[in-house]
Amino acid sequence: MARLLNVRESIADIYRKNSPCHDFEMRFWPKKNSKFEERPRTKKRVYLDYAAATPMTEAAVAAMTRFLRDDFGNPGGIHLEGVRAKRALEEFRTTVARILEVQDTGVVFTSGGTESNNLALRGVLKSLHQEGRPYSQMTVLSTKLEHPATLRTLDVLERMGVVVRYVPVRDDGRLDIAALRSAVDASVVLVTLAYVNSEVGVITPCREVRRVLDEKEKEFGTSILLHVDAAQAPLWLPCQLARLGADLLSLDGGKCGGGKGVGALVMKKGVTIDPLLRCGGQEMGLRPGTEPVHLIAAFATALTEAQENWQSRSEAVAVVRDYAFEQMQKRIPTAVVNGPVGDARVANNIHISIPGIDAEFAVITLDAHGIAASTKSACSSKGGGASAVVLAMTGDEMRAASTLRFTLGPDTTTHDIDRMLDVLTKHLATLR
Amino acid sequence: MARLLNVRESIADIYRKNSPCHDFEMRFWPKKNSKFEERPRTKKRVYLDYAAATPMTEAAVAAMTRFLRDDFGNPGGIHLEGVRAKRALEEFRTTVARILEVQDTGVVFTSGGTESNNLALRGVLKSLHQEGRPYSQMTVLSTKLEHPATLRTLDVLERMGVVVRYVPVRDDGRLDIAALRSAVDASVVLVTLAYVNSEVGVITPCREVRRVLDEKEKEFGTSILLHVDAAQAPLWLPCQLARLGADLLSLDGGKCGGGKGVGALVMKKGVTIDPLLRCGGQEMGLRPGTEPVHLIAAFATALTEAQENWQSRSEAVAVVRDYAFEQMQKRIPTAVVNGPVGDARVANNIHISIPGIDAEFAVITLDAHGIAASTKSACSSKGGGASAVVLAMTGDEMRAASTLRFTLGPDTTTHDIDRMLDVLTKHLATLR
Repeated sequence: MARLLNVRESIADIYRKNSPCHDFEMRFWPKKNSKFEERPRTKKRVYLDYAAATPMTEAAVAAMTRFLRDDFGNPGGIHLEGVRAKRALEEFRTTVARILEVQDTGVVFTSGGTESNNLALRGVLKSLHQEGRPYSQMTVLSTKLEHPATLRTLDVLERMGVVVRYVPVRDDGRLDIAALRSAVDASVVLVTLAYVNSEVGVITPCREVRRVLDEKEKEFGTSILLHVDAAQAPLWLPCQLARLGADLLSLDGGKCGGGKGVGALVMKKGVTIDPLLRCGGQEMGLRPGTEPVHLIAAFATALTEAQENWQSRSEAVAVVRDYAFEQMQKRIPTAVVNGPVGDARVANNIHISIPGIDAEFAVITLDAHGIAASTKSACSSKGGGASAVVLAMTGDEMRAASTLRFTLGPDTTTHDIDRMLDVLTKHLATLR
Repeated sequence: MARLLNVRESIADIYRKNSPCHDFEMRFWPKKNSKFEERPRTKKRVYLDYAAATPMTEAAVAAMTRFLRDDFGNPGGIHLEGVRAKRALEEFRTTVARILEVQDTGVVFTSGGTESNNLALRGVLKSLHQEGRPYSQMTVLSTKLEHPATLRTLDVLERMGVVVRYVPVRDDGRLDIAALRSAVDASVVLVTLAYVNSEVGVITPCREVRRVLDEKEKEFGTSILLHVDAAQAPLWLPCQLARLGADLLSLDGGKCGGGKGVGALVMKKGVTIDPLLRCGGQEMGLRPGTEPVHLIAAFATALTEAQENWQSRSEAVAVVRDYAFEQMQKRIPTAVVNGPVGDARVANNIHISIPGIDAEFAVITLDAHGIAASTKSACSSKGGGASAVVLAMTGDEMRAASTLRFTLGPDTTTHDIDRMLDVLTKHLATLR
């Protein structure tokens, strides 16, 4: 116990040192095989890649701590340690269920957004297949702008025989509702869309989509599920399933301050899915494996914080974001904005193309001057090359090859934006 | 579920009845929705359920801490935060690879043992299928003693058309090597076995299995992969793949001090599997999703500690375990040991049947007196009922219905054993 307290103290020390994430300061590149020792810090970093990863919130870390060495029991155990873990798990499930306004049994904890999307799409289709519906008689609708976790899973469904159709989007990335309406026929069983696009920040008008599906359900006498990938949403938008008209919703801890390696698939009452993994009866039989209570504690805590203040957080960051767009227009007149302007864009997203630039070189230069940005989404960046999202939206290869993404956090300031623009404009000047 | 809730109520009843005069201070059950505040404890709990869950080691917690709010970057990012995360990730991968004596590319981090087993079995079969081999022409061998993560995945393979055969075991749970030899024919592509059985602690002689497979590979000119589920092994046995003759090895952080929600599937060079989840190219394309570096840090650290001292740890705990068996023989002469004695049993496992007892009631009574034990494995306990493992071993239903499992930890003492036996013998006396 004495030792445990030491560990906690050291965690607390680290909080004190590092408090809000933008306050952490430049550390020099570690040498190969070094053990990442603390090095002297000189200047604050400006982190503008919140869509790729968020630091865990202090409250999330605090919530996690008690389950590491103290209440570490297996929730499947019938002793004190097990029952305490199980009860905590169910409290956190209730927390998530209340925030999203679903029943407790509708919250399935997973290892993150990727698993949630895989489980949602394959789970729904496999379940319908087991009810006797051939794969070839089922259609899933989506768009070409989706996250790879969705697109690659749709590829798997296609190989199983499912018909997958991609609804066109406008050149600012907004879903073409008329095109959606005409794409829905009697074979459509599922529509899967991101709530917020992880690259260009376009928001799907989920309610509007649901209204189209409701019309079509009536017309054909069918049932159409709406799956919404909300991984990028909790900090900036309301995520209640009923409000969105969603039947299934994917969430990711790593994108909302709750830590990587945990997430949830949240479902309305009556939605049935087939599990991906097989083992014991954990998570209503839908996601087996010992429940990682410490991760779920952190995730539920961060999700609560995120959803409590999404509106004021969104309004505040939008002011900084709009300042950035305004300044960019002045200082980098060749830059074009990708994605929509106004309410159809998530509050923290800046995504531009600067025709002719080497986007990766620009990101690396920004980085060398203390600013973290990206060219596109982290999950897609391994392949290098152009932004598939911008290409799908605009058909413009030059524009897709020269993208810069800045995703702001709750603590990003106009001063941070000025610093970023100072570096970027200087970099562009040296290229000329 | 209803049954489980009833069990909990009865635990609470026992606490309430005995509360003030207890030998450890009751932490009264938190009211619903309470936040589990810490209460003072007077006497140490005796935790004898290490096979169900281990506390994270201090070093594992310390290793995790820096990645929570400081080095929280997405390893897919190309900026400082991303590169630092990526470099750390690859260092931890190298750590695990060196311990297990495989190449770095052979270490695939997963969300835990359940996913590792699912990925191993389905990954191998799907990969062979894609090479053109029909499912119906492939056989997988296993035993009826395996963990549900294996058994339920084998059910899935069977539904896909794969032939699954279960090799018989002796009545002490040891694999019947002669039966294995005669079970291997030219259609066998994979053999999957637990290194250490999570209930009765029987150790599979992996090298001996491999020798049989080598013989048969020569005889038939085939290739047979050996998958070993080593979730229960790292604290007590060497896990190097070459030493075991294993081609694939499953590990779980939650069972070796590394934390729940993380694990690995480790593979020898040349083994190819198909991924379960789809998304980006993380983990050599075999396990997509943003890599949870903090969890991997903890897991790699705990695995290092576990494997560094497995032998002395094993020898020390075996002394306590043997003391327990000796005392049990004296004090509970009706108890029969399940599983083997001697070297074929993992050092920390005690598994007995006491014919006629209500095992769950015994566990609850032990718990009320400060001792955490279990009737069988946590993953199987949701269903209630008898031990499938003991039933498969012995065919004795009475024996399978009256099992108690005590799995010791590195800090378990003979004094803990005495306390446990005091309570258990008193309990048995009151039943007479």
